[in-house]
Amino acid sequence: MNQSTITTDANRSTGRDLEPLFAPQSIAVVGASRTPGSVGNAIVSNLVFGGFTGTIYPVNPKAKSIMGIRCVPSLTAIDEAVDLVVIVVPAPAVEKVVIEGADRGTRNFVIITAGFKEIGGEGLERENRIKKLAKDRGLNILGPNCLGVINTAVEVSMNATFGREIPKRGNLGLISQSGALCTALLDYAKGIGMGFSRFVSFGNKIDFTEVDLMRSLAGDPNTHVIMMYVEELSSGREFIEAANEITHGPNPKPILAIKTGRTAQGAAAAASHTGSLAGSDEMYEAIMKQAGVLRVETVKDLFDYAEVFEDAALPRGRKTAIVTNAGGPGIMATDACIRNGLSLSKFQDYTLKSLKFQMPATGSFKNPVDVIGDAKSDRYRSALDAVTADEGVDQVVVIVTPQMMTDVNQIAHVVGEIKSFCRKPVVSCLMGMADMKEGVDLLKKHGVPSFQFPEDAMRSLAAKNRFTEWTRTPLQEYRQFEVDDEALERLFDAELEAGRTQLVEVRALEALQHYGFPLVPYSLAENANAAVKAAEEMGYPVVMKISGPKILHKTDVGGVKLNLRDEASVRKAHDEMIASVKAKMGDDVEIWGVLVQKMLDPGKEIILGVTRDPKFGPLLMFGLGGIYTEALRDVSFRLAPIRENMAGEMIKSIRSFRLLEGVRGEAPSDVGSIGECLMRLSQLVTSHPRIKELDMNPVIVYPQGQGSMVADARIILSKES
Amino acid sequence: MNQSTITTDANRSTGRDLEPLFAPQSIAVVGASRTPGSVGNAIVSNLVFGGFTGTIYPVNPKAKSIMGIRCVPSLTAIDEAVDLVVIVVPAPAVEKVVIEGADRGTRNFVIITAGFKEIGGEGLERENRIKKLAKDRGLNILGPNCLGVINTAVEVSMNATFGREIPKRGNLGLISQSGALCTALLDYAKGIGMGFSRFVSFGNKIDFTEVDLMRSLAGDPNTHVIMMYVEELSSGREFIEAANEITHGPNPKPILAIKTGRTAQGAAAAASHTGSLAGSDEMYEAIMKQAGVLRVETVKDLFDYAEVFEDAALPRGRKTAIVTNAGGPGIMATDACIRNGLSLSKFQDYTLKSLKFQMPATGSFKNPVDVIGDAKSDRYRSALDAVTADEGVDQVVVIVTPQMMTDVNQIAHVVGEIKSFCRKPVVSCLMGMADMKEGVDLLKKHGVPSFQFPEDAMRSLAAKNRFTEWTRTPLQEYRQFEVDDEALERLFDAELEAGRTQLVEVRALEALQHYGFPLVPYSLAENANAAVKAAEEMGYPVVMKISGPKILHKTDVGGVKLNLRDEASVRKAHDEMIASVKAKMGDDVEIWGVLVQKMLDPGKEIILGVTRDPKFGPLLMFGLGGIYTEALRDVSFRLAPIRENMAGEMIKSIRSFRLLEGVRGEAPSDVGSIGECLMRLSQLVTSHPRIKELDMNPVIVYPQGQGSMVADARIILSKES
Repeated sequence: MNQSTITTDANRSTGRDLEPLFAPQSIAVVGASRTPGSVGNAIVSNLVFGGFTGTIYPVNPKAKSIMGIRCVPSLTAIDEAVDLVVIVVPAPAVEKVVIEGADRGTRNFVIITAGFKEIGGEGLERENRIKKLAKDRGLNILGPNCLGVINTAVEVSMNATFGREIPKRGNLGLISQSGALCTALLDYAKGIGMGFSRFVSFGNKIDFTEVDLMRSLAGDPNTHVIMMYVEELSSGREFIEAANEITHGPNPKPILAIKTGRTAQGAAAAASHTGSLAGSDEMYEAIMKQAGVLRVETVKDLFDYAEVFEDAALPRGRKTAIVTNAGGPGIMATDACIRNGLSLSKFQDYTLKSLKFQMPATGSFKNPVDVIGDAKSDRYRSALDAVTADEGVDQVVVIVTPQMMTDVNQIAHVVGEIKSFCRKPVVSCLMGMADMKEGVDLLKKHGVPSFQFPEDAMRSLAAKNRFTEWTRTPLQEYRQFEVDDEALERLFDAELEAGRTQLVEVRALEALQHYGFPLVPYSLAENANAAVKAAEEMGYPVVMKISGPKILHKTDVGGVKLNLRDEASVRKAHDEMIASVKAKMGDDVEIWGVLVQKMLDPGKEIILGVTRDPKFGPLLMFGLGGIYTEALRDVSFRLAPIRENMAGEMIKSIRSFRLLEGVRGEAPSDVGSIGECLMRLSQLVTSHPRIKELDMNPVIVYPQGQGSMVADARIILSKES
Repeated sequence: MNQSTITTDANRSTGRDLEPLFAPQSIAVVGASRTPGSVGNAIVSNLVFGGFTGTIYPVNPKAKSIMGIRCVPSLTAIDEAVDLVVIVVPAPAVEKVVIEGADRGTRNFVIITAGFKEIGGEGLERENRIKKLAKDRGLNILGPNCLGVINTAVEVSMNATFGREIPKRGNLGLISQSGALCTALLDYAKGIGMGFSRFVSFGNKIDFTEVDLMRSLAGDPNTHVIMMYVEELSSGREFIEAANEITHGPNPKPILAIKTGRTAQGAAAAASHTGSLAGSDEMYEAIMKQAGVLRVETVKDLFDYAEVFEDAALPRGRKTAIVTNAGGPGIMATDACIRNGLSLSKFQDYTLKSLKFQMPATGSFKNPVDVIGDAKSDRYRSALDAVTADEGVDQVVVIVTPQMMTDVNQIAHVVGEIKSFCRKPVVSCLMGMADMKEGVDLLKKHGVPSFQFPEDAMRSLAAKNRFTEWTRTPLQEYRQFEVDDEALERLFDAELEAGRTQLVEVRALEALQHYGFPLVPYSLAENANAAVKAAEEMGYPVVMKISGPKILHKTDVGGVKLNLRDEASVRKAHDEMIASVKAKMGDDVEIWGVLVQKMLDPGKEIILGVTRDPKFGPLLMFGLGGIYTEALRDVSFRLAPIRENMAGEMIKSIRSFRLLEGVRGEAPSDVGSIGECLMRLSQLVTSHPRIKELDMNPVIVYPQGQGSMVADARIILSKES
């Protein structure tokens, strides 16, 4: 896959118009039922009680009416082409209904029914037939095996699900791969008073994918925050490109995602659940980071983050002020602030003066501001007026504990008022539960995000800060280096023709040379004279390694000599090496010669690598050499291709990055040169899908400005291109 | 401090009987008030409405009665010595009241009033006077600057606080350094329906400490779980010993603690709040680990954990079964299970057969068991019957999502019933909120811990597993090695007399030798002949270092020679070294000779160290050598002395421990010998308080069975002993 393909892919996705699915004016429910508690009854009921603004056609050949609405015996009996057909009949009957609907001119279908891919065998065949149908007839099909779809927009007001809840209208858009989880999410949202714009349970993804749905939510003006629950992604690249677009530009929308299957056991449970192989969590972690999607671990965080993201006020920076009526929670908030990567505001003198003037002497005027346990709303107002006006404050966390004199509801009103004319994020934390309920409701009415504990407030605020910074960082291009792709292809062709999938080291070096990697000077010498000549040209000391197509474990056969410092040693080493290899592998072993390489000055050793995932493509790996990568597994991954800033982030995200910054007075390493290597590598594996695996190990990194050198490389090709 | 002192300290603490404070039969409230909303009114009101079983005396010279109870003008006007005096008069008047009460025979006081140590100056003086009073007259004084004390025991039923809530009776005992936080905790507990046995806000700790209170709660039969909020500890050693006792023996009680001030900024906020220096978080982390106290980060976790700990059922092991009616949450639970260090049960054949027989074909019989969205309580019952009976199941997590047919309350009943005859922990997770409220209440009534999300359930369960394992691990002794303390003291005396606080290397090695550390063979040679003799005795190759009291930076003055392989090199090195040092430091530089050390075979390098905290005493440090400790700060700490198993945990808890286990086919390192070094070091610094700092860097560790060798050491003494 090269860059042009990527763009095409992304465009194709953008082109998928799912709007008709979300805004039908007529809906037929095939399999509608009079039996309370049945799925076919619940859907009609939810459509009716959800206040659907269009026409509902319950399809049931046996019943006369359902919920007072006259039934039709079949789709063909309806005198119009309905905009949307919701199907709840048993799996074997589904295909026929889709054909019938399509014949009548319907283009949008929701298949609630289960019993398809997830049960394998017959189910999979059914699914494939309907998949083909969708493609051949140009249909939009949601499901099968899903809860359905909700659009709360006033002009549509459609709840085409069999959930127990009719969700509140709001600005959260949710996409979920698990239908059953949706019911829990709806109930939780109801409990905390949050509302949805659109809500889609997409099930088996017979037709379009989470990326299509994500783009669709991005285009919906009522959706301010996109929330996802996924067990696997259909495509990494499309997901990254779509999310990059959605999270940038004049109206970026945050995307929050739960991706389960983090552990091997979890992934196994997911596989048995959805019947799809999830891929490694490292891969998903990389994809989410590149996409700019905030991956959250828990449902609670999902909604906590959504609450701060719903608020339109964006932080200018990470400097945070805390106002509290209790010292302990102030300390908790401070700890949480720092641990989540935010910083404490240092107040301006005028703020300190104002606070000193207005607060009791026993209060604290520094950040966190302690208005003391007996504070009522007026003191909160003075403190908040002062800190929100401070230039050194980017955002404010207000903490209220229920002391004896605390007028919680009045304080909630004050916070709400201040929030209404403050352009900085203000979040509140009403600690406790029973006595705080009303205050929390008041705050929510005022649009002030409200949390139970300081940690939740800070974590959510920190997520908003990270996202805001992400949206403000322009998307950098995929750098394209001038390289010799043709020469490389010829080299690969030749190797494969010779029956070699693992390239001989000298060929691997040549391959990298076509891509402009900084290589340690090397030369393949056919005899001792040539070796001496090469050594003299590149300068002593040198390293020599035997080179031959079948000699994979060079050290074992005496095929490596280090630190050769003069002509005599080169000649001696050459002869010994040839003799030793022949002694061990037979006189007729094919020897191309000796690879002479300049012996490198010591530097930091790093490893760059690529593996190719059958589903997501090439995954780049970076780590420090030796034990850091192998034993401590301190490595970072990104899906190729990578944008320029992503290369930098990839390098910085290993734990031992500090060692590259220079410790104990060392000069910092040339991190920029590593970044360039990563981008070249990214271009290489993206443009040449025949590369199955590639390692550069070690790459020696020198101090800033002195670059890096690839000392050794291994390339394995796929047999089929 | 040596071991006998420790025992004494711990015993002294055990001796403090605070019971009279918790179970008075008469209470005088000095500063009682008729004014609603005042502290003096709230306390009388809480005592009355809390149903105090004894006699209440409101003390107020101006009012006739408060809440219908006839006031007395002063303590002296009461015709009995009241058991407890609660003081709410302004700070300057407090001392007089204490004296008055003590004169009348009262021994127990709660000082609610603020305005003492926390405001410094005058306040501190006031506090010190009352502190002296407590000591001189043998009083128990809680506070000042606190919310008060609650004991919900039926026979006492005392709420002597000015909180807004009268807490439910229950089995949680809470100790809090922050009074204001208490109100939030009480309100939260009310919201989630949890009750307390005792509730103490201890404020400024004028008299007894959190350790006394902890022991007191440990002795209270109504308290099953001890919860703490602390900003600093008064003593690390007493805390560890007390907690070790409480968490062991026939009736171990779990201790959960929030200790704030994790970050430097948080610690600063805490310092300005309580006026006390907290000490480093590393220190606290070490203390909590050694104490066996579960440190929690958030109020939510505090109560979540308390909920599983209240349940008497103890897990036999970490093997966990999951039963769910939704696939997605099952995957979430699996991820959370593994990430929290639990494992998934592998079911026995009979369990699988039973599940296959009873579940629908589309369900999952493997763990997690998916009873499918249409499951009602009967199917939950079958699944739970099967998995709770399985020998491979140590604990069960039941997940319920609100599907259309889900009879939540019936399921709650079933889970409650199964729990009632099951000896394994069973926790539930009713996902959602609005529709789940009743089910949650039912579960709580049945004593089934209930959580909103799988992550919370697993995290809490994992905490219980860790604690259960801790209680089952016998407390190992503080090993006492046979050492030569007297020789060591003489050595220290001599060095200090010579005006040296930093020991010359050879003296540091001698000091360690008195403590039986495995030292690399060394000898101080006064001339070249002696150096040769020493080298030949220990065997070549050797290292030589110049030795003299003023020569601290040996390398800088040419005072170190490595890898000397024969007599000639030793002689040459000796002469060069002497010449170089004299050239650089002057001819009259004091030279003791050269330190000849056997050059060690390579092994893994580690660092052992000690610093002495002014408050908590010696803190042991362990890390791998070089960058691991210095740049990556991958080190672990424990407060000396350490028990034997703690030494092992200390070693295992560094991230790079894997390198000692042997990577890339290496033999594992001799971890046992590191443990012994740590214990010797622990004994050394505990017995010799004059040691201010000590480093052994590096210590070379060899493969298992081959021990370790201390190669270099640095000891700094305090001037005053």
